Parts: sequence; C-alpha cells; structure tokens
Amino acid sequence: MPYVNIKITREGGPEGKGPSAQQKAELIVGVTDLLVRILDKKPASTMVVIDEVALEDWGIGGLPVPEYRAQVTKHKTAARE
Amino acid sequence: MPYVNIKITREGGPEGKGPSAQQKAELIVGVTDLLVRILDKKPASTMVVIDEVALEDWGIGGLPVPEYRAQVTKHKTAARE
Amino acid sequence: MPYVNIKITREGGPEGKGPSAQQKAELIVGVTDLLVRILDKKPASTMVVIDEVALEDWGIGGLPVPEYRAQVTKHKTAARE
Amino acid sequence: MPYVNIKITREGGPEGKGPSAQQKAELIVGVTDLLVRILDKKPASTMVVIDEVALEDWGIGGLPVPEYRAQVTKHKTAARE
Amino acid sequence: MPYVNIKITREGGPEGKGPSAQQKAELIVGVTDLLVRILDKKPASTMVVIDEVALEDWGIGGLPVPEYRAQVTKHKTAARE
Amino acid sequence: MPYVNIKITREGGPEGKGPSAQQKAELIVGVTDLLVRILDKKPASTMVVIDEVALEDWGIGGLPVPEYRAQVTKHKTAARE
Repeated sequence: MPYVNIKITREGGPEGKGPSAQQKAELIVGVTDLLVRILDKKPASTMVVIDEVALEDWGIGGLPVPEYRAQVTKHKTAARE
Repeated sequence: MPYVNIKITREGGPEGKGPSAQQKAELIVGVTDLLVRILDKKPASTMVVIDEVALEDWGIGGLPVPEYRAQVTKHKTAARE
Repeated sequence: MPYVNIKITREGGPEGKGPSAQQKAELIVGVTDLLVRILDKKPASTMVVIDEVALEDWGIGGLPVPEYRAQVTKHKTAARE
Repeated sequence: MPYVNIKITREGGPEGKGPSAQQKAELIVGVTDLLVRILDKKPASTMVVIDEVALEDWGIGGLPVPEYRAQVTKHKTAARE
Repeated sequence: MPYVNIKITREGGPEGKGPSAQQKAELIVGVTDLLVRILDKKPASTMVVIDEVALEDWGIGGLPVPEYRAQVTKHKTAARE
Repeated sequence: MPYVNIKITREGGPEGKGPSAQQKAELIVGVTDLLVRILDKKPASTMVVIDEVALEDWGIGGLPVPEYRAQVTKHKTAARE
C-alpha cells in the first residue's frame, strides 16, 4: 500500500508549464517499478501524486528559488573571475 | 486538534471542474462530524483541507489515471466478450 | 482515487495511547463512506492514512497543545469567578 | 535537513491573489532563520514550500471558511446587540 | 528542487520492522536517479522522506489493511472452491 | 487559517532524541509569530505540526543522511589536504 507524493518546481515563471504529461507518466511508472522491485509492493495498490509548485512558492537557503539560483550563479561567476 | 487532508482527482480533463462547492461543504461537515462522534474532537479545532489533483498528476497501477481507467475498461470489455 | 490523511493528537502524554484500533477502523469506514456517498468514489481506490501526533509536537495559538489547553482552562476558570 | 510546508488560505474569493511574492519571501527567510537559530540547521538544506488553498477548500468548525467567518461575525454582532 | 514523500506500510504487525535500512537506501537512490534522468533535477537539492505507517493506521476499501487483506484472501479462496 | 508542517531529522541515530520540548515550543511560537506579523493571521487558527524523521528515513543527494554527511565530510577533508 504505498503512497508517494512528488513535489517539483514548475519551471519557467508564473506561466511555466512544468513537466510534460509524458514526463509525469515516466515518473509514475518509474516510482511504481522501484516499489515493486525493492519492496515487492503491488502496482494496483501504489498511488503516486505529483504536485507542481510555482518557483516563488519554493524556498531554499532562505530565499525563493529564483533569487537562490541568481545568487548561486553570481557566486560561481565571481569564483571564476 | 485534528487536521484532515483530502486529495481527490479533478474529473473531466484539464478543464475539469472537480467537486462543486456544495459537495466540498458536505465533505467538510461529514469528516468533522465523524471526528466529533468517534473521537470526541471539537469542531472549532478541526481543520479540513481539500486538494484537487489533475488526472495526469495522479498515478495508480504504474499509469496516470486516464490510461489506467482505459486499461481497466478494456480488460472488462475483453472479459465480457 | 481519493487519498485522505488524518492527523490527530495522541492524547495522554508521551505514554498516551491515542485512539484504539476499533476507533481507527470506524474512522476509515466512515471517511470512505462519505467519499462514496458524496462523490461516488470507489472504496477499492480510496486510501486513508492516520497519523498520531504527540501533544508536544502539535501547536495552536502559538503554544504546544498541553500549554494551550492549560491556558484555555485558566481563562475559563477566571471568567467564571 | 528540515522541510517546511506552509498552507495558507488564498484570500479574496476564487479570484483572490493570496500573499504577494514579497510576503512569501519574508516567510521563507523567517522560517529558515528560526530553524537556524533554534536547531542550528543549515539554510542550504532547508526547504520551504508554500501552498495557497482556495477558501472553499478549507474547512473549520465543520464549515468552509467563508461560511465559518460569516457565522463568527453574526455571533459577534448578536453578542454586541 | 524535488521533495518526495514515500509512505509505506510497516509489515509484520505492531512489532513489524518495515523495510531494512538497505532497502530504504535503494529507494532513496532509485527515486533520486529517476528525477535526475527524467527531469534533469540535481541530486543535491532532491530530498526523499520515507514514512512507515502501522497496518492499523492504513485503510483501503473502507477497512484497515489487515482486515482488507483477510477479506481479499477469503474472496480468492471462495472463488477457487 | 494557516497549517504548518515542519519535518526535521531526529539527530543521534536510532536512539536519537531529536529537539527538546523546549525547542519545539520555540519553533511553534516563532512560526506563529511570523504568520501573524507577515500575513496578519490569527494565532488561534494557526496550527503547527512537527514531525521528527529518523536519519535513515531521510535522503538527500541520493543517499540516506548518515552516508551523505560522511561523504561531505570526506570531500571537505580531501580538499583541505
């Protein structure tokens, strides 16, 4: 009886499209196969729910994702100069 | 202090409407009443949050819901023929 | 395809026992029946997961539940006097 | 390795806008700072995910939030008269 | 920035042990690899949290898992006789 | 009506104790204050639930936390030598 919830950022700004239906289908079958293979779970009782999260709603390092990425990029550039 | 999260598929494709506001209100009062009756919880400290999930974001049996349902229908039809 | 997560406090301190297996079974059938009756969901694809949360891990009103309840009781007593 | 999920109502009806990007950024930094200060967690491995929930999808006291608030207001008005 | 939560039943009754640390490690690397391969996510910002759920806390088909399994077994046996 | 769920690792191995009740109380009041200050939420309808997660149940970088930390330490030591 597994239940899996996958939260991922919806890339591309407020109008971002997130992963395609095809990519989501690959995630669903991939995760289900893992649970069957490693824990002998049954696919028929394995649920997977995917949530797309807007970039401004996801924080890491104390910053929303867009600001966090901008900062990481700046640091990398500075380190190279 | 109960907190209940109900995740349900938003039926009807990407433009699907999911349950009506009336149906959600019935779910909220129904779940709250259960918690009061079975566990003597107080309604004032019982929260219910309903999430509608797009069909392509929900997987079961290793397939997104639309493909899963198509497959189940095909099997049933085959079994009847 | 509903998935329902019910979080409730485990009453009775760190050694609290929470709801009995019988009460949990009543919650499971009660919530499933609601989803069948209101939204025509199928029991076979309805999952319910119950989480018991220790009192010190649940906060409301800016306080852990034990302190919150003590405060509410004090206010009620004061109001009556 | 903290993961924090903040669910808040999206105020203002079905067309409500919820908190601004600026307010979300303040929540993200505020929660991260708390975890650093109280538990010595590292910001780089602290994730915060904010979910806005439509008013009709949130229930308290056995009612969807709009009906609950209307009832609370009515009670307060009645108490004052 | 993916966050994955995997809920699985802790098999073997109240004293059940659930999956081994080795099986959990395989799940963690397996899910992370999927997110890297399908969505080009970075492992360093991919979190996986595994929750083991006691059998009596998981319901399906309106029954706690132990009763549900007993019922399925009975039906299968009846069908074979 | 905010609901906040904080998941943190239970440090110190399988017998780890996690944060103290005092630290949890500080988290609860801290998060509640943030929601009051930034979003004008009411403490009485703000719930905070803290989950402690065993180290072997938390993965990052494709590894359970203990292995991940060992690897990070090794890299840092190698870089210094």
